[in-house]
Amino acid sequence: MKRVNLDHIAATPLDPAVAEAMRPYLDGRFGNPQSLHTDGQEALEAVEDARGRVAALIGAAESEVIFTASGSEANNFAIKGLALARRDKGCHLVLSAIEHQSALHSAKSLEKSGFSSTLVPVDKDGLVDPEEVRKAIRKDTILVSVMLANSEVGSVEPVAEISKVCQAAGVPLHSDAVAAVGSIPVDVGELGVDALSLAADQFYGPKGSGALFIKKGVRLLPFIDGGIQEGGRRAGTENVMGIVGLGKAAEIAGLKLRERAAAMTGLRDKLIDGLPRRVDHVVLTGHREKRLPHHASFCVEFIEGESMLLNLDMKGISVSSGSACTSRALKASHVLLAMGLDHALAQGSLVFSLVDGTTGADIDYVLEVFPPIIERLRGMSPLYTKFLEEKRT
Amino acid sequence: MKRVNLDHIAATPLDPAVAEAMRPYLDGRFGNPQSLHTDGQEALEAVEDARGRVAALIGAAESEVIFTASGSEANNFAIKGLALARRDKGCHLVLSAIEHQSALHSAKSLEKSGFSSTLVPVDKDGLVDPEEVRKAIRKDTILVSVMLANSEVGSVEPVAEISKVCQAAGVPLHSDAVAAVGSIPVDVGELGVDALSLAADQFYGPKGSGALFIKKGVRLLPFIDGGIQEGGRRAGTENVMGIVGLGKAAEIAGLKLRERAAAMTGLRDKLIDGLPRRVDHVVLTGHREKRLPHHASFCVEFIEGESMLLNLDMKGISVSSGSACTSRALKASHVLLAMGLDHALAQGSLVFSLVDGTTGADIDYVLEVFPPIIERLRGMSPLYTKFLEEKRT
Repeated sequence: MKRVNLDHIAATPLDPAVAEAMRPYLDGRFGNPQSLHTDGQEALEAVEDARGRVAALIGAAESEVIFTASGSEANNFAIKGLALARRDKGCHLVLSAIEHQSALHSAKSLEKSGFSSTLVPVDKDGLVDPEEVRKAIRKDTILVSVMLANSEVGSVEPVAEISKVCQAAGVPLHSDAVAAVGSIPVDVGELGVDALSLAADQFYGPKGSGALFIKKGVRLLPFIDGGIQEGGRRAGTENVMGIVGLGKAAEIAGLKLRERAAAMTGLRDKLIDGLPRRVDHVVLTGHREKRLPHHASFCVEFIEGESMLLNLDMKGISVSSGSACTSRALKASHVLLAMGLDHALAQGSLVFSLVDGTTGADIDYVLEVFPPIIERLRGMSPLYTKFLEEKRT
Repeated sequence: MKRVNLDHIAATPLDPAVAEAMRPYLDGRFGNPQSLHTDGQEALEAVEDARGRVAALIGAAESEVIFTASGSEANNFAIKGLALARRDKGCHLVLSAIEHQSALHSAKSLEKSGFSSTLVPVDKDGLVDPEEVRKAIRKDTILVSVMLANSEVGSVEPVAEISKVCQAAGVPLHSDAVAAVGSIPVDVGELGVDALSLAADQFYGPKGSGALFIKKGVRLLPFIDGGIQEGGRRAGTENVMGIVGLGKAAEIAGLKLRERAAAMTGLRDKLIDGLPRRVDHVVLTGHREKRLPHHASFCVEFIEGESMLLNLDMKGISVSSGSACTSRALKASHVLLAMGLDHALAQGSLVFSLVDGTTGADIDYVLEVFPPIIERLRGMSPLYTKFLEEKRT
């Protein structure tokens, strides 16, 4: 069976050019960038070349890019590294309520060391109001962290405006841009951020390869102590193949991002408009316009996301019911709850996220197979039976 | 020019079978193990299969293996994760003086949170005396960390005996086995360790892929907070390709380790006996017998390790002057200093470390080109001139 991949947010396939850039590392190249001999020198050049490409994609300087093994590591690194470096200035953090678990749990883990945090609410579309950030900042606030885009509901946050608030208060701003980099234009200067996280597997690069932008002059404690890799801030032998893949993916994203987005937006809208028209009690989640170009997310009443996901899988369609990082926990998403959705509705979450190469036929196929799946599942749903009974009376 | 790779300790080439196991992930496979659909399920099975192979290599249970992105990360994870989990029991750590920087600096970084540590000395061969560990353990000691083998001098430590001391004192023992796993038989049960670090790139697996063994029932705080990957202790999308490579490398090591070691020991001894015979003022570092089968390390008087390394590189030979993780820092090795070597001699460190496939002809080539290089370098060395003058008078 042909598979239709609409699960960009879990992982994108490797771009063939990325795979080609990585292939020499399966076929003989293996130098350690820290070795002083020729093999090491070649590896070092490959790593630094990739650093330049990543920096170019986000408008940073090469020296402002630190490689990590994931977006989650970059978020841990930024939040813990910035907070611990600024401990003498205070111990209060401000995050949005819809941050990724890797950001929220980093803040939580800092609480064991005497830090505290305030979660800024979001509106029904999952958007953070910069004014709410301003109100949450206290005298002892040492870090604000607000994501650039949310992978569960697709909304793109007003980070540039939030940055103005932070700058006025003299508080550094970190943005988790894992869901955004490579999909929408991201420029750290225009955003005004001091730190920014990204991950290769969100834009056709390999898993296990991410990066943290840290603005020149901003103090950050090391995350992995040890050797002198990454300026002594992130020790461990470099994952050269993964870094090369990230670099190539960044280069390609810089060239194709707009074209890819343009191709996807129309297809995305076809889903956003088409699904609720074909199935009752389907609600779009996230902002209608201020959203990722590849992202169409819904809550479907009376059914659990997992059942829909598994039924779509049987039809060859891959989708998510939320963040892959928590999918197996089978809990209602903290993002949807923060947006004011009730528990029952939040359980019916479904995310269609397009990848490069998604076709109109793929979307038509989804629009065709989705309604009968929902009808069948609702036929078995006690919640739906109850709803119909109540409606009848 | 044909290159002779004698820099195992910096990185081993990929075993061709490891490359083949990884190749599908360049050529279309990309599922996220946390996705509930078919693509995700396939990826999850690959990760769990690799976990089983790693567990089998070291005699652990599958559930006792946590994947990391490097040996350095595994060391940070073990030392910080165990220490912070046992904070209520005390705040004193015991490490050997020749631990890797990732272990020593992890302990150092814990000092900012109120921990302190004692470094146990080593003898002139770089061996830790279990009795010294016993003496260093205090009532408030909550962790001992002693490496299984040292990558700079090749010595293999008496970890099983150290474990008896730790067990008697009721203190958990972590062992950095990055330089050992895959090169010598390692069984966590026989060693009696509570935690153990390893890295794929030390046994013909990929860079960016390591693991931490943590004994069932031993408490460990998460290192990367966030999603539910690795039992919630190490968040972030799994580097599936790297993990699969680690698993395959572990499987091959289990099958070939003894054969590889047997082939290397003779060649290693040829270097250990041959070099000092051909060049004056060359001292073997590390224990003559209790050492890694692929490891021949020396200090060459009156010359800096880097000059020898670069001159050997020009002859096509890759070697190290110490740990790659600190090579560019160009400082005398803390390992050699701890063994009682003076600064000048420690600067002349050179490590020849054999890889699978190293031939007798490779070793003969080294024995042929090394003496004239040393003669030439010594001819330019003010230290050597001074030595000759003093000898003459």
